[in-house]
Amino acid sequence: MLHGMDYETLLATRTHLMQASAIREILKVASSPGMISLAGGLPAAESFPLEIMEELLGSVLGKYGSKALQYDASEGWEPLRQALVPHLAARGVQTTSDGVLIMSGSQSLLDGVGKILISPGDCIAVEAPTYLGALQAFNPYEPRYVEIETDEDGLIPESLDDVLSRQRVKFVYLVPTFQNPTGRTLPLARRKRVAEILQRHGTLLLEDDPYSDLRYAGERVPPIKSLAPDNVVYSTTLSKTFAPGLRIGVCVAPEFIQRWLVTGRQGVDLHTNTLAQALAAEYLSGGYLDRQLPKIIELYAPRQQAMLEALERHLPEDFTWSRPEGGMFVWIEGPKGFDAIELQARVVERGVAFVPGRYFYVNDEVGAATLRMNFTAADPATIEHAVSVIADAIAEML
Amino acid sequence: MLHGMDYETLLATRTHLMQASAIREILKVASSPGMISLAGGLPAAESFPLEIMEELLGSVLGKYGSKALQYDASEGWEPLRQALVPHLAARGVQTTSDGVLIMSGSQSLLDGVGKILISPGDCIAVEAPTYLGALQAFNPYEPRYVEIETDEDGLIPESLDDVLSRQRVKFVYLVPTFQNPTGRTLPLARRKRVAEILQRHGTLLLEDDPYSDLRYAGERVPPIKSLAPDNVVYSTTLSKTFAPGLRIGVCVAPEFIQRWLVTGRQGVDLHTNTLAQALAAEYLSGGYLDRQLPKIIELYAPRQQAMLEALERHLPEDFTWSRPEGGMFVWIEGPKGFDAIELQARVVERGVAFVPGRYFYVNDEVGAATLRMNFTAADPATIEHAVSVIADAIAEML
Repeated sequence: MLHGMDYETLLATRTHLMQASAIREILKVASSPGMISLAGGLPAAESFPLEIMEELLGSVLGKYGSKALQYDASEGWEPLRQALVPHLAARGVQTTSDGVLIMSGSQSLLDGVGKILISPGDCIAVEAPTYLGALQAFNPYEPRYVEIETDEDGLIPESLDDVLSRQRVKFVYLVPTFQNPTGRTLPLARRKRVAEILQRHGTLLLEDDPYSDLRYAGERVPPIKSLAPDNVVYSTTLSKTFAPGLRIGVCVAPEFIQRWLVTGRQGVDLHTNTLAQALAAEYLSGGYLDRQLPKIIELYAPRQQAMLEALERHLPEDFTWSRPEGGMFVWIEGPKGFDAIELQARVVERGVAFVPGRYFYVNDEVGAATLRMNFTAADPATIEHAVSVIADAIAEML
Repeated sequence: MLHGMDYETLLATRTHLMQASAIREILKVASSPGMISLAGGLPAAESFPLEIMEELLGSVLGKYGSKALQYDASEGWEPLRQALVPHLAARGVQTTSDGVLIMSGSQSLLDGVGKILISPGDCIAVEAPTYLGALQAFNPYEPRYVEIETDEDGLIPESLDDVLSRQRVKFVYLVPTFQNPTGRTLPLARRKRVAEILQRHGTLLLEDDPYSDLRYAGERVPPIKSLAPDNVVYSTTLSKTFAPGLRIGVCVAPEFIQRWLVTGRQGVDLHTNTLAQALAAEYLSGGYLDRQLPKIIELYAPRQQAMLEALERHLPEDFTWSRPEGGMFVWIEGPKGFDAIELQARVVERGVAFVPGRYFYVNDEVGAATLRMNFTAADPATIEHAVSVIADAIAEML
């Protein structure tokens, strides 16, 4: 007798924690033809150094030949690890090339940290709201979450201290600079407080820092990694300053953690794409990044300006929003009782998409009145138009 | 009071199942300067189409521009999925582009399947011996293993039937063609038996097929996927026929399984490197692979010939070995009581490395007298010399 396949019964218990996110559905709608999307987190295509790619490849093939196409070490392509040392030092992260681990995009570091550290039921502390991609990485390892309170300056240190005093937390996950989704940046004074709290409790922090190079105003704030190096797994990426499609994530972790990340990723993907790493090494060491970054900032700064001005011009008085000095997102809060999911449905019909903010909370009872808007993927005129469409829909709802 | 960091206590319970393999240590030794290595599984550097990489990139940038550097769909780069349809059909796997899933090397599919299907304690059936990279991928999900018996023709169907009759198995994992580590190929008659057994028990098979394009003699054998499509997750790779450093794995799975693989990998790495996929699409659709593959076979066939001849010439009569019609490995069995780990230690001192076969068994009580030798990474004269060094050391041990 033949048995039909009953695939459903084959799934692991953890798999049901991987439900496709509501955001993914929104992004699908947002990418349909003719739609103006403030929903995604895409870098602008114009920010990519397309015109130098052939030069970079020529340089890679000339220097390394077939080595650039071969299997490579799980730790990363040595010339890239070396090129990243001064790049990281410039933002306050002191390390040697041995201290640099290259992952397949920072998503693969989020997965790796979850995999080696989270046992089912372990508690992870996250900001409210937090980056959804991190939850997607951690969820399959079956953690519980505890939320840390935030205000317009990001995480509130006293709330962190409170959480860590009340329970054992496997690690804290933060995006301290130009946070996704809020755009908020934790000021230096708070970073010092956080570093002290982590050290006092002997707690590990996963500091996710994808955006700090995208600064349009103000001064760099040192990463928490520089204030409590033994307590922090620091993560950054070349996705916003080179190209996301190359999937280059960068990690500086305490040696013990790095060793387990390397062992863990051998079962997951062996190593990061060799050719992409070699291209990235040339991009950094050849000075291309230093020339490209000002161009990227020159592209994004007016887009952010356009969004902030459009919000000022069009939104009702009882709406407030973040005014980040960099990054890719602005966070908007409507008055109590406002329903951003209903707004999303209304504006999609008019060809505009954004992401309702409640999806970024672990506790989905809160954040109903919030919106995340991206300003890097559309030009200033389009942003102005999209915000006016959103504002019209808001006016109809009030 | 400051707490020092006690990293050890942060590890998840699963992490202790990720111990770095003995093979990795051997490969480290094997890659030291001056060492002749028959230990690894590296494609020859000369097999890479280095001279066309700039042409491929030009073509990608001309056709797709910045799209080739942008975030892409988790399912894979559409032109690559399309280009793979006829490529897969030529080996007997019928699908549409929607049925093709691109992963970050076939390792990432092994991880993905483990992640979505294995609950702690679930039983996975594997060949004895089996591919170690698969165990490394599955282990963190805490399965039990049951071994299926094999002979010189690969897996013994009656043993599989027996195992599936006695217990519930989440899936079976096989490398049916030019297996790693044995080089053995399951004949068509056995494949038909296996397909029937899988269908009768309603059991899923993960069919790992990285080597079947590397055929130096004889006729293609159809994959089990072609005989029982609903029961098989089929996996292949461009690592042996394009370049392993590009990390392109290819999967054709039942739709239900594919959907969960896509959801799962969104938390792990979002998607496979866009540029690498775009280069691979040009490599296939531009006819480059069809021109490169005969060159690769022309390179490897004499290397395999050299190894088989050297074994014939140098090894004592009580040693036997596989004579595969393709792939990258030959499997050698010494007489009862022979210790391949001692042999490995002796030959390393003389600048030659191979992998003792016992590491490929789940049950490490068996396989003590076996050796795996790779013939793709060294030229014929070097292979002849290395085998003679190994034979000399064997003679001293007997």
